[in-house]
Amino acid sequence: MTDDDITIQKPCCNHNASSANGLQNKLPPVVKTLVAALQTENSFEHVGPVPIPSHKSIIDIIYQVRQILFPGYFTKTKLHAANLEYYLGKETTELYERLSQEITMAIRHDCRRANLPCTHCEERGHQTALSFIESLPKISTMLSTDIRATLAGDPATASSDEVIFCYPGLLATSIFRIAHELHTLNTPVIPRIMTEHAHSLTGIDIHPGATIGPGFFIDHGTGVVIGETTIIGSNVRLYQGVTLGALSLPKDAGITLQHVKRHPTIEDDVIIYANTTILGGKTIIGARSVVGGNIWLTESVPSDTRVVLKRPELLYSGRKGGTS
Amino acid sequence: MTDDDITIQKPCCNHNASSANGLQNKLPPVVKTLVAALQTENSFEHVGPVPIPSHKSIIDIIYQVRQILFPGYFTKTKLHAANLEYYLGKETTELYERLSQEITMAIRHDCRRANLPCTHCEERGHQTALSFIESLPKISTMLSTDIRATLAGDPATASSDEVIFCYPGLLATSIFRIAHELHTLNTPVIPRIMTEHAHSLTGIDIHPGATIGPGFFIDHGTGVVIGETTIIGSNVRLYQGVTLGALSLPKDAGITLQHVKRHPTIEDDVIIYANTTILGGKTIIGARSVVGGNIWLTESVPSDTRVVLKRPELLYSGRKGGTS
Amino acid sequence: MTDDDITIQKPCCNHNASSANGLQNKLPPVVKTLVAALQTENSFEHVGPVPIPSHKSIIDIIYQVRQILFPGYFTKTKLHAANLEYYLGKETTELYERLSQEITMAIRHDCRRANLPCTHCEERGHQTALSFIESLPKISTMLSTDIRATLAGDPATASSDEVIFCYPGLLATSIFRIAHELHTLNTPVIPRIMTEHAHSLTGIDIHPGATIGPGFFIDHGTGVVIGETTIIGSNVRLYQGVTLGALSLPKDAGITLQHVKRHPTIEDDVIIYANTTILGGKTIIGARSVVGGNIWLTESVPSDTRVVLKRPELLYSGRKGGTS
Repeated sequence: MTDDDITIQKPCCNHNASSANGLQNKLPPVVKTLVAALQTENSFEHVGPVPIPSHKSIIDIIYQVRQILFPGYFTKTKLHAANLEYYLGKETTELYERLSQEITMAIRHDCRRANLPCTHCEERGHQTALSFIESLPKISTMLSTDIRATLAGDPATASSDEVIFCYPGLLATSIFRIAHELHTLNTPVIPRIMTEHAHSLTGIDIHPGATIGPGFFIDHGTGVVIGETTIIGSNVRLYQGVTLGALSLPKDAGITLQHVKRHPTIEDDVIIYANTTILGGKTIIGARSVVGGNIWLTESVPSDTRVVLKRPELLYSGRKGGTS
Repeated sequence: MTDDDITIQKPCCNHNASSANGLQNKLPPVVKTLVAALQTENSFEHVGPVPIPSHKSIIDIIYQVRQILFPGYFTKTKLHAANLEYYLGKETTELYERLSQEITMAIRHDCRRANLPCTHCEERGHQTALSFIESLPKISTMLSTDIRATLAGDPATASSDEVIFCYPGLLATSIFRIAHELHTLNTPVIPRIMTEHAHSLTGIDIHPGATIGPGFFIDHGTGVVIGETTIIGSNVRLYQGVTLGALSLPKDAGITLQHVKRHPTIEDDVIIYANTTILGGKTIIGARSVVGGNIWLTESVPSDTRVVLKRPELLYSGRKGGTS
Repeated sequence: MTDDDITIQKPCCNHNASSANGLQNKLPPVVKTLVAALQTENSFEHVGPVPIPSHKSIIDIIYQVRQILFPGYFTKTKLHAANLEYYLGKETTELYERLSQEITMAIRHDCRRANLPCTHCEERGHQTALSFIESLPKISTMLSTDIRATLAGDPATASSDEVIFCYPGLLATSIFRIAHELHTLNTPVIPRIMTEHAHSLTGIDIHPGATIGPGFFIDHGTGVVIGETTIIGSNVRLYQGVTLGALSLPKDAGITLQHVKRHPTIEDDVIIYANTTILGGKTIIGARSVVGGNIWLTESVPSDTRVVLKRPELLYSGRKGGTS
């Protein structure tokens, strides 16, 4: 579909029955109803002079950052020691331009929505993009510790290439670390679009506001949820389905609980096995502790402790006689 | 790969070893074996005169509907009050043409597969597309209630823009509401392709046959399953990993249990926390009840009730001495 | 972004503030720091003369194989009995060329990484591609049994077309069977890229090394994890969230536990319900047994047995008085 040309109404295909043509004449009144419906108080539209950040551009930016952080892995350009600086210079300049533009749009959009004056939006956009790019060496170092943690913890791979190429845990962590940096720089909307893209690809849902130390490894990952105010130390390992979440929320939680610490703290060197849920802003899992799988925890665990579920009682029966 | 030209067999690359060329001569007999295998009773092919709906076109239709329902959010066209009706008219006309065509193909394909005469497939296709478009204002109103429920229930966002741009729960609910309308209009195959697309993007699997009231909010969402005959009232909130499913099914369930109510009923204003499973067609969760996380429920819960798991017994040990 | 041209540094848009231009001058030193950081021991880069397999090409190969295995379902080319062999011949020849090329790159890349001499990489690439194509009739037969198992087990569909078009369980199983064949032929990296693509689309994570018999059906599927050394018999059915995994792993599991059988064995005709976790290399679920949902199992179950969780104790309270 192109946005810039209007086709004259024509039958949709050669076999078009005349009755179908008759139906098409009923469209204009439907459009009028639709326009009226979309203009009521109840609807959400984005009709106005401020352009919005482009979802597609933000996804492209993620992958350009990844090309810069892992040179040679995700490009057809053959890299060697001689052209590496040239390549990174070119990619980084492009990134700066695109990122400035999207951040500026996000800030300006945010100002207009809040009815604030938008005096330095563009300058802020460029400054934020530059600060982000200055943080790339730091992000690269963090991701190296994450790759090493993955290789140390997973017997099903022996190759850092495989981890970088296709591990969902590393993909989600990479996108989180990028988004978190932008979040820290007070960029609106863009960080969340990034982490929700990672969520869509991997099933791993990390809020860009979470704090996560080096050497982080998520294995398998589908169903992992890490809430906004979670704090995770160094060398922590999580398995699929782990939730680090909030205790039950009242119906109006959206307003009353913003910016309160609602999610747990996980100290250094902790392992949490599959499908365990840990809830609450005051819940602390002490350093070097191991939390078994399938556990529902709403209270703290001291350091150097192993917690497992007492073996639940199972009922066995011959297959024909049983019910389930 | 293009479908319309055949390239002459040539070496795959410059470095091609002569032995590799020798291997290529072994291809024709393999193809013969493959053709023979695909033509046996055991195989599934779609060789015949009836074209099938295009997966890609159906996905495109989803996003065009979304552009119509949320004008200005997902397009580069700048919208203002003066061009809104023009824009919606153009988009709706295009949608009508594409949708008629795909529905007609789906119906015709269905007729041929069932060996039924296909006399009014095209007229039915156009009528269904028109009825669908007539329902857009209703869908728009429903989605507005879903957005408001999200804003009310989630402390991690303050912006309807963020919800519309990137919340997986709203994406899955939007696609469900579109697919459900087509399902109600007896469109074959297309609704399921739509909801499975949402499932792929969000990890939220809602059958297009389910009934879901206004003000629906799914937070995080990965692993949510809502079965075909589920009924959900107004202002219900679900968290990740919630299954609203069927009790255990016999091996031949595919035949014997079609169209029987196999999935639960969730009344108005219910909240169900993460990873809880509720099963059975006669299971009713009464209005305003709250079901805690990690629960396995196969029986009804009265209205205004809070149900939580009795705290399961945990075993703590010093890390070195324990086993898991 | 194109890789082959360098744009001269220019302001990113017309509104560009002069201060923003000033910021851009700060880029070159940042690039120098980045290059230095990426060249330390701590970083991962892929700078060298060996090209790596292309992620995109491998995904394209998956879908070309699917077009061959399910002729007529995923192409606009109309197929009839007369052109089927011609079509399959063309597709298979193309597949052979692309697959040889990617496998050769993967093998060569693997040799260089391991500092091994790479004498027959290209010949091995072509031989592996041919062996893979020779296995397509076998894979087709296996997938037919999977489709029949799906139709037999799921009351929410009545159509093999719907299963082939949009069932995530069949998609993940199809990609697994393709990847497993390449894994068996000792292809590096490519099988895992394939199954992680399936994981991303479906939430179903099957390691390419797993062994899975005919008639396999995964319903819904999000959150399913099937480990590398799992063995699954004929006609097994799994629901969403089932993990067939390893017992708890030490911090250095990546090195010490490679190639040991760490995952369970599931015999013929077993059903495992949603969100159940079965762990350990010596754990065997006997033939025709049924394992209920939400169970954590680390020990074997005899044949013809039904295992369910003893109904856990729930606490009910009036909604106002309760806590959760």
